[in-house]
Amino acid sequence: MLMLIGTGLFCSGTNKANVGMTTTLDQAPINTQPELESILEMARRSTYSYDITKFLSNSIGPRLSGSPQAAAAVTYIAQTMRTLGLDVRLEPVTVRHWVRGKEEAELVRYSGQAEQATQKIIVTALGNSVATPTDGITASVLVADSFKQLEQLPVSEVSGKIVVFNYPFDEFAARAGRWEEAYAAAVEFRNTGPSLAARKGAIAALVRSAGSGAFRVVHTGVTRYSEGNPKIPAGAVSAEDAALISGLAKQGPVRIHLVLTPSDLPMEQSYNVVADLKGSEHPKQIVIVSAHLDSWDLGTGALDDAVGIGIAMDVLRIVQKACPSPNRTIRFIAWMNEENGGAGGRMYAERHSSELKDHVAAIEIDYGDGRPLALSVAGIPQRVAPISGTLHKVGDHLAVLSESQTAPGPI
Amino acid sequence: MLMLIGTGLFCSGTNKANVGMTTTLDQAPINTQPELESILEMARRSTYSYDITKFLSNSIGPRLSGSPQAAAAVTYIAQTMRTLGLDVRLEPVTVRHWVRGKEEAELVRYSGQAEQATQKIIVTALGNSVATPTDGITASVLVADSFKQLEQLPVSEVSGKIVVFNYPFDEFAARAGRWEEAYAAAVEFRNTGPSLAARKGAIAALVRSAGSGAFRVVHTGVTRYSEGNPKIPAGAVSAEDAALISGLAKQGPVRIHLVLTPSDLPMEQSYNVVADLKGSEHPKQIVIVSAHLDSWDLGTGALDDAVGIGIAMDVLRIVQKACPSPNRTIRFIAWMNEENGGAGGRMYAERHSSELKDHVAAIEIDYGDGRPLALSVAGIPQRVAPISGTLHKVGDHLAVLSESQTAPGPI
Repeated sequence: MLMLIGTGLFCSGTNKANVGMTTTLDQAPINTQPELESILEMARRSTYSYDITKFLSNSIGPRLSGSPQAAAAVTYIAQTMRTLGLDVRLEPVTVRHWVRGKEEAELVRYSGQAEQATQKIIVTALGNSVATPTDGITASVLVADSFKQLEQLPVSEVSGKIVVFNYPFDEFAARAGRWEEAYAAAVEFRNTGPSLAARKGAIAALVRSAGSGAFRVVHTGVTRYSEGNPKIPAGAVSAEDAALISGLAKQGPVRIHLVLTPSDLPMEQSYNVVADLKGSEHPKQIVIVSAHLDSWDLGTGALDDAVGIGIAMDVLRIVQKACPSPNRTIRFIAWMNEENGGAGGRMYAERHSSELKDHVAAIEIDYGDGRPLALSVAGIPQRVAPISGTLHKVGDHLAVLSESQTAPGPI
Repeated sequence: MLMLIGTGLFCSGTNKANVGMTTTLDQAPINTQPELESILEMARRSTYSYDITKFLSNSIGPRLSGSPQAAAAVTYIAQTMRTLGLDVRLEPVTVRHWVRGKEEAELVRYSGQAEQATQKIIVTALGNSVATPTDGITASVLVADSFKQLEQLPVSEVSGKIVVFNYPFDEFAARAGRWEEAYAAAVEFRNTGPSLAARKGAIAALVRSAGSGAFRVVHTGVTRYSEGNPKIPAGAVSAEDAALISGLAKQGPVRIHLVLTPSDLPMEQSYNVVADLKGSEHPKQIVIVSAHLDSWDLGTGALDDAVGIGIAMDVLRIVQKACPSPNRTIRFIAWMNEENGGAGGRMYAERHSSELKDHVAAIEIDYGDGRPLALSVAGIPQRVAPISGTLHKVGDHLAVLSESQTAPGPI
C-alpha cells in the first residue's frame, strides 16, 4: 500500500487530496488520513496479493525470461487484471532466453589433499554467463579479495587462471540498516568482476555469493560483460566455499575443475503486462505502480518479485474500489526481463517516448515483503524536494519519505 | 574443556581432587578451582583444537566411512597424537562404504502447471538409502504431516506412491532451549519413516529436512530400514520444497520424478584411533574422551564432528601438561563410522568387553562448538546421582551438571 501514499491518491471527490508530484503540488492540502485508513483496512482484510504471490511462486514457479513459466505468468496476470475490468494490454518485448546448464566444480589440488580425493564446491552460473566446454576447464585458482588486489597483479600472474573474488558481504553494515550499500558493494564483483579478470587473462571468474545467506547456498544474478574483453564463464560459489578456497590458497597451489554449461536459446517474444485504471480529470497523466514478472531460476521467485506483482495488483484492485475515478491514470505494469536484460523497461520507454513527459510518478516494488519502513524517492529535484519529509505515520504503518535515501539500482 | 570437569581430573599431587564417578566419590572434596582455571587458560591461549578442526575440514574434507578422506583422517589423527608422546593404537573397524550418486527431483504434474514446465525440487539421499533405477521413478505424491496420518490410510491409498513426510521442525521449541527434543522429533521421520511408508506399499519416501535451516538446503542423516519391509529409496527435500509439495498437493494431484542413485561399495577396513595417557594410581580405570572422525559428505564435517575431535585432542594435550600422571588412564578415541553404522562403537565394545567394567566415565563431544552451557550425564543412578548439581561456575564458563537432562541419542 505504500506506493499509494507515495504517488498520492488523487480521488475525485469532496475530500480531494493532491499529495503527489504534480504542478499543483504547492496547492495540495494533506488530509488523507481517513482514506488511507480505509484503504489499509481493505488491504488487511484480503488475501488477494498473497494468493497471486502464491500462484506465481508455487504453481507457475521460476519465471526466467523466455521460459514457458514466464509466458504462463504473462497470461495469468493479464487474465486476472481483466477480471478487475481494467484496460489490459500486452506490450511486446523481445527477450533473451538464457538457460542454466550443468553446474559442477571441485578442487582437484590443494594443500593436505587426501589421495584420490577431491573437494566438491557448490557453484552456480551467473546470469548471462557464457559456458565452459562440456567437460569443463581445469586451472589454478587466483584469489582476490578486492578489485585493487587484482589490478595490481601483472597479466602474467592472472593469465590462464580462474579468479575467485572472495569479497565477504558486509553483514555488519547490513544489520546496521545499510543493507543496500552492503549489497551493492558485493554485487559489484558479480557485475564487473568477470570482465576485469578477463582483461588480465583469466579464463573464468567465480565470485563469493552476495548476501548474508548462511549454509552452502549460492546466489545468482546477472553479470555484465564489458566491451573489448573476452567473455569468460562466470559463476558464484557459496560463501563457505569461497572461504574454503581462500584459506587453502594461502597454504599452497589450488586447482579447480569447473563445469558451467549455460546456453542462449533463440530470442523469445514476451510481454510487459500493462493495465490502466483511467484517470478522470487528467487521464493522460500517468502514475505507474509496477513490479517485475520475470525471476531467477534457483528459487521460485516468490520475494523477487512475485510478491511485488501481488502488491501492485492489489493496489489497483483497492484503488478501483476506493476511488473508481482517480484524477490521473493509475497504470499497473508487470515488467518482463528485469533480471537479465532490462528489455521490458527499455521497450516501454521507446514505445511510450512521446508520453514520458506525462508520467508524473512511478514505483517498482522490488524489495520483498514485510513491514515497509520508509519510502525512497528519486527524480528531478524540484519535484522531489517539496514532498520529502511531508508524509506521516498512518495507523501502524510508517509512511515516511526519507530525504537521505536515493533510488536503489536494479537488483 | 568441559569433559575434563565432568569426568574429573584425578591428578596425583598435593591438591588431589576426586570429582568423578568412582567408588571413592563420597570421600572427594571439591577444590579444583585453581587447576581448572589454569587449564582453561592453557586452552584459551592455544589454537591447537582449531588447527586440527581446520585441517580435518578444509584440507581433508568430508570423511564418510570408507572414503579416502576418512582413511587420511585416521592417519593424520594417529600421527598427531603420537607427536604428543601418547600410546596410540589403530583398532580395526570394518565399515560400509556408502556413496552418494545422482540426486535429482522435479514435479512433473501439479496444479497450475505451465505447459512444458516442471518444478525442480532440491533433494538429497538419506544415508544408507537404496537407489532408484538410473533413470529414476515417477509416481504420485502422498503428503503426510505425521505418522498417525499415514497409519490411518489404507494400503490402497499409499501403494505405488512416493510418501512425503512434511513434519516441520519445531523452531519454537528449539528457540526455547529444547533443541534436542525438537531435533529428535524431526529425525524420527528420517529414521523410521521410509520403512513405515514401505509397509503401506510406498515406492519411495522423502522427508522434510530436519533442523531450522533456511534457504533451499537439504539435511542428510541416516535412515534405518526395519526388518520385514521392502527397502525403498529415501531422501530429504528442503523445508521450502516440502512446503511447496504439500501446498500443491492440497490443490490437486502431484507427480514427482525422483532420481537417487547412491550405492554401497565393498566394505572397507578402517579404524578407531585410540590414544592413552596412562594413569598412575589406577591405570586400568579408564576415562574416555572422544569424538567421531567420520562425517557426512554434504559439507566438510567441521561441526559434526571435526571440532569434537579437535577439542578431545586438546584435552589430552593439556591434561598431559597439567597433570602428566593422572590417577586413571585418560583414553582419547576418534570413533569411526558414527554416522552411518556405528561400527566403531560396537567394535570397541566387543574388543574391550572384558575391560568395560573398568570404564569409569566416557564422553563423546558431538554437539558442535561454542560456549558450553551445561553437562548432561547418564549412567547407573548410584553413580550419577552423587555428582549431579555438584559442579560450579568456573571463570566465565558454566560447568553445571544438570540433573534434569538425560543423555542425547546419536546425531
